[in-house]
Amino acid sequence: MVPIHWDDSKGEILWLDNSKIPWKEVSVSSKNLARLIKAIQALEIRGAPILGEAGAYGTAMIANNSPDSRERILKNVMEHGARLAAARPTAVNLSWGVRQIQNVVKKEYDSGAAPAEIKKAAIEAAKKIQRENIEATYRIGEHGKRLIHDGDVLVTICNAGTLACDGLGTSTAPMRAAYADGIKFRVLATYTAPLYQGARLTAWELHKDGIPVQVITDNMAGHLMREEKATAVWAGADRILGNFTKESGSVYNKIGTFGLAMMARELHMKMYVAAPTSTIDPEHAVKDIKIEQRRPEEVETLLNGTTIVPEGVGVLNPAFDRTPPEYVSAIITELGIAAAPYDASIPQLLELPGSMVRFSTK
Amino acid sequence: MVPIHWDDSKGEILWLDNSKIPWKEVSVSSKNLARLIKAIQALEIRGAPILGEAGAYGTAMIANNSPDSRERILKNVMEHGARLAAARPTAVNLSWGVRQIQNVVKKEYDSGAAPAEIKKAAIEAAKKIQRENIEATYRIGEHGKRLIHDGDVLVTICNAGTLACDGLGTSTAPMRAAYADGIKFRVLATYTAPLYQGARLTAWELHKDGIPVQVITDNMAGHLMREEKATAVWAGADRILGNFTKESGSVYNKIGTFGLAMMARELHMKMYVAAPTSTIDPEHAVKDIKIEQRRPEEVETLLNGTTIVPEGVGVLNPAFDRTPPEYVSAIITELGIAAAPYDASIPQLLELPGSMVRFSTK
Repeated sequence: MVPIHWDDSKGEILWLDNSKIPWKEVSVSSKNLARLIKAIQALEIRGAPILGEAGAYGTAMIANNSPDSRERILKNVMEHGARLAAARPTAVNLSWGVRQIQNVVKKEYDSGAAPAEIKKAAIEAAKKIQRENIEATYRIGEHGKRLIHDGDVLVTICNAGTLACDGLGTSTAPMRAAYADGIKFRVLATYTAPLYQGARLTAWELHKDGIPVQVITDNMAGHLMREEKATAVWAGADRILGNFTKESGSVYNKIGTFGLAMMARELHMKMYVAAPTSTIDPEHAVKDIKIEQRRPEEVETLLNGTTIVPEGVGVLNPAFDRTPPEYVSAIITELGIAAAPYDASIPQLLELPGSMVRFSTK
Repeated sequence: MVPIHWDDSKGEILWLDNSKIPWKEVSVSSKNLARLIKAIQALEIRGAPILGEAGAYGTAMIANNSPDSRERILKNVMEHGARLAAARPTAVNLSWGVRQIQNVVKKEYDSGAAPAEIKKAAIEAAKKIQRENIEATYRIGEHGKRLIHDGDVLVTICNAGTLACDGLGTSTAPMRAAYADGIKFRVLATYTAPLYQGARLTAWELHKDGIPVQVITDNMAGHLMREEKATAVWAGADRILGNFTKESGSVYNKIGTFGLAMMARELHMKMYVAAPTSTIDPEHAVKDIKIEQRRPEEVETLLNGTTIVPEGVGVLNPAFDRTPPEYVSAIITELGIAAAPYDASIPQLLELPGSMVRFSTK
């Protein structure tokens, strides 16, 4: 499955429309910036790492679409790149991806490169970002598969799979690596209301790969974790604090992760978080992070528009939650596995202070 | 709000169609048994105590519809009553309600009562069952309101309100009693997938009464219990074990209750269960109770039929879960409040062994 791809022969970006899964498997290709922006806004393209790739490829496409003028390429990449970055303002990875290619173009321009050279450098840099993303998921798989054993029953939330993260996905990477090694386990994928990305996307991905998976509603998790003898929860992460305090190892992820973590603790199960080290945020504290509140309509109505909340009744719609480090059994990254205490293990994993540059995505 | 009612002038049963709430508020009245059975099967009439009332009124209606012949009344009540009882075989309250009126009719018949007297006795007995149900909810409210304080944020699951239990409802009764006393609190009603009865019914009921309520998806509970500083979970119960062992106080209720109970414990909140003593089961043990598995289609598709589970992927659909007694802060009944250890407090509440008769509903 190719969630996003650069087509050299046509100079187009090709992506798998996430909003149509599991109903239809539709690939879209375009060299039109407005179309790409629409795709990002309509969640045809989603997931933090994939948005980084979309930002990079989109900006490379802007360069590629420009006339063969050094000045016009630079101007377009800066101006239209800003439009692309603003398509989803809260998605830090998107603007990060745009910025990486803007920097490459600026550098090539400053060094006096010819138009064709600038364009080529932009596309190569975007491909490199994707290659490194994919490579990181394979490493996460290699490290994490040691935590999956015959007979395990694993619980997932939302989609931190290939569709969101490319390659093997993040929380799904250890599953795929263990499955490739012949380990026998099965997965309970939680609905993850209000967009049901656990049912729609994660179950779809795992089933496609032949990994045994069943879908459960969010409120079934506690009961089924006990009755089905689940062994671990596997979640991804949108942000992991690594701020050298006791808050290090705090995990921001899709709403519901903290609930699963509490239930895992009550039931003496493991709570694993898989994410690339680019997710680690060394600068911010819990008090700095504002949880994004999404539109009430998402909760008021089911996916297809049927209203289930009575008129006049309010709703809450936080997109993410925070799981404190004491609930996290281990954090699995491409560089290895960190365990508590995270204020010591995260810097060790990253061999700080020398490797601070790895934090550049946030 | 009148969830079910006997209309003396027309000799009909009148009910509020639960399946249309919150979209439409439709009262249906009928003296036709087939129509009543259809209403029960289509969840127009639902909830354990209300089904008991429907069984009783339905059987009284069968008597009332019969010709003025002692033999025909008895025969109809036995034969057609059995049809009514079988409308939802797993709903113990429905067959219990039928049986109560069958017993009354048989007793009147045996004592030589005239046809009109038998009919009148059946209807009066059904009304008495409803009156006692309603009375129990008021008592639950009076006892339970002491546990609700100014500033409280209460979390509910599914619907254990008037629509299911008549009167003030069960888990909603202490809220209504506290609200009447001017206590200021607010409620977070969880979706309760896959039928969303928390959003559709509980929020609708509380909002109608002016009690502040917001709807949240099931996976938001853990995060919002912490962030909104919730103080207690209030659940109803379908069955509470009272078998004189350490299992006493085990609560069987809508799927998701156990998850909320675990999160309540992690967050040092209270977990309250409100139910009439007729819910207490003195005979069975955990090993005896089989959790009902409902149709996979309920999980595979959203309420209005949109499929969200990919083709070929299985689902689980347990209707209930079991919360062990160590998670239950208190059980609020019409006779008073029981707390741990429940193997001592439940018999005490019921003044056992003298009052074993109270267990007759299960």
